[in-house]
Amino acid sequence: MDAVVLREGEQTPTVVEKPKPEPEPGEALVETLRVGVDGTDHEVINGLHGGFPDGEDHLVLGHEAVGVVVDPNGTDLTDGDVVVPTVRRTPGESNEFFERGEPDMAPSGQYWERGIEGAHGFMAEYFTSPADCLVTVPAAMADLGFLVEPVSITEKALELAYASRSAFDWNPESAMVLGNGSLGLLTLAMFEHTEGFDRTYCLGRRDRPDPTIDIIEELGATYVDSRQTAVADVPDTHEGMDVIYEATGYAKHAFETIRALEPNGVGALLGVPDSWEFEIDGGALHNEFVLHNKALVGSVNSRVEHFEAAVETLETLPEWLFDDLVTGVYGLGELDRAFDDDDTTIKTAVEFSTYEER
Amino acid sequence: MDAVVLREGEQTPTVVEKPKPEPEPGEALVETLRVGVDGTDHEVINGLHGGFPDGEDHLVLGHEAVGVVVDPNGTDLTDGDVVVPTVRRTPGESNEFFERGEPDMAPSGQYWERGIEGAHGFMAEYFTSPADCLVTVPAAMADLGFLVEPVSITEKALELAYASRSAFDWNPESAMVLGNGSLGLLTLAMFEHTEGFDRTYCLGRRDRPDPTIDIIEELGATYVDSRQTAVADVPDTHEGMDVIYEATGYAKHAFETIRALEPNGVGALLGVPDSWEFEIDGGALHNEFVLHNKALVGSVNSRVEHFEAAVETLETLPEWLFDDLVTGVYGLGELDRAFDDDDTTIKTAVEFSTYEER
Repeated sequence: MDAVVLREGEQTPTVVEKPKPEPEPGEALVETLRVGVDGTDHEVINGLHGGFPDGEDHLVLGHEAVGVVVDPNGTDLTDGDVVVPTVRRTPGESNEFFERGEPDMAPSGQYWERGIEGAHGFMAEYFTSPADCLVTVPAAMADLGFLVEPVSITEKALELAYASRSAFDWNPESAMVLGNGSLGLLTLAMFEHTEGFDRTYCLGRRDRPDPTIDIIEELGATYVDSRQTAVADVPDTHEGMDVIYEATGYAKHAFETIRALEPNGVGALLGVPDSWEFEIDGGALHNEFVLHNKALVGSVNSRVEHFEAAVETLETLPEWLFDDLVTGVYGLGELDRAFDDDDTTIKTAVEFSTYEER
Repeated sequence: MDAVVLREGEQTPTVVEKPKPEPEPGEALVETLRVGVDGTDHEVINGLHGGFPDGEDHLVLGHEAVGVVVDPNGTDLTDGDVVVPTVRRTPGESNEFFERGEPDMAPSGQYWERGIEGAHGFMAEYFTSPADCLVTVPAAMADLGFLVEPVSITEKALELAYASRSAFDWNPESAMVLGNGSLGLLTLAMFEHTEGFDRTYCLGRRDRPDPTIDIIEELGATYVDSRQTAVADVPDTHEGMDVIYEATGYAKHAFETIRALEPNGVGALLGVPDSWEFEIDGGALHNEFVLHNKALVGSVNSRVEHFEAAVETLETLPEWLFDDLVTGVYGLGELDRAFDDDDTTIKTAVEFSTYEER
């Protein structure tokens, strides 16, 4: 079968022929429909993140997949089920985090991530997966199911953020996304359509006309240009934020978030930057953090419950958003376009098959 | 009546004569037993924190009080009830935070703090208070009731900290207090006796022999000397901490806490430092925060429920702790000793009356 891989020493994805996988006991065989491409894939390709499976000279890419069960192999799944796989897998041996269904809480070294770290991904005509790592989604989601995984990332981050504010009466009204990538825009859409904030904002660094600014404004949110307004100044130029969702990986934003929050607000941090030393007014930030009961939560990955919540969320978001957000779905013949990362590209996917064609 | 005040332009408490207060409707009159002294009092005295009531040239000090109701004045209280007052009061007009019983969540400007900011404290022979700001405690707590307020501060901080970890299965085993002041030591005792951590640590910067190190070790905790071990290095020299409670006001500790936490851990920040610029590896801290699902929560003040929880906590802590922790209780004739801040002083209180004498 065809598979999209990153080979050792290369920084471009390649299509190679690999044997069709055979499911082990407890695993199902899935025919892949589409696999989304995100910033993590670009980091993996550029060698900034992740790692090959032990002893292998290549990594099958892709962690945002949707497919169709073609061999349930004795599991509870049914032939024809449309499914989305979770990403983390046991690193050979299981551990307490996987055993209690919370692989997203496992620390470094206690997981593999398919398509990212230590395990092959889903960007191939077929993949196998333990049935309990496959979330069944409505057949109507066969086309857009590759968005379940990214939305699940936000479901988890917001769950952690809200939990941190659950010990008092909290009625958030204002919310801001830092970053206008596809995850930022999906989150902004959730802020508007499922989270019910009164006023939403999205930070970017783009000139108009720009397709992401168009989406931001079509959603009813306010675009904030980070070249004109530092995150720390947002309370002065706009208002303090009850919720901030950081999806830029720009470390200064993480710390300026403390300043940009409204009293009793929470910032969810999602970015994974490299080492970078800079100066902060740590005393003033510490003081502000305490005197206004603020919180910061870091969040990575997601688990089955978040995938299930993401399915419901995707059913709530408007159709036009997906039309504007998904700027291209490409077959293996146009692989380079799927991995484009220019200002007209928002979200892409690689298509292996369609639900109807099967 | 006698009252301990800070006068404008001075940095030493003085005993002055003031009229005995008369309770307004809804208020009770309380005869003061003891009022504790803490770091905030020292900051107020040194002009680093707080402010006088509008139009007044002095501030009655003290926010950690215990007293006896001597005039219930038609409230639900009873003559002879031993009570502890909460600290925050409406700043003239009420607001949503007070109306829903969460004054501790009110932002700056929306509260006064008795003995600290905008309102006279409790360090006088009598004080009045709205009955709903008086928490009734067992008569047996007449002597040590001045510890209810500081313990309530930790009750709230831990409530926020645990809430932030409530969205997943979390079984904290290791906990560290940064700071060996009286609040730090009380919190360490809670970590050992009511919070049930398996291994506890306390950071200080003292040489042995030292009475706080003695308490730390008597509690069964490990003393960590910050001059030998930076907070960020604690995972290397000891272990990562599931919970860190910062009670130093040293801003670098707040940010190094991110590094010192175990994956999925939480740091509660309590210190209120001044502006201080320094360099951090913000990229590495941001990365660590996210990839290990860490959380930081700031916490200030406390509300009635936390005072009630503090009463239960104080009943659980061992007697020897109070004997060692409370290094002096002084009458007005020895006021200077109550405000000592040397290495042999841990916790002091000013005594106005005793429960038995009344």
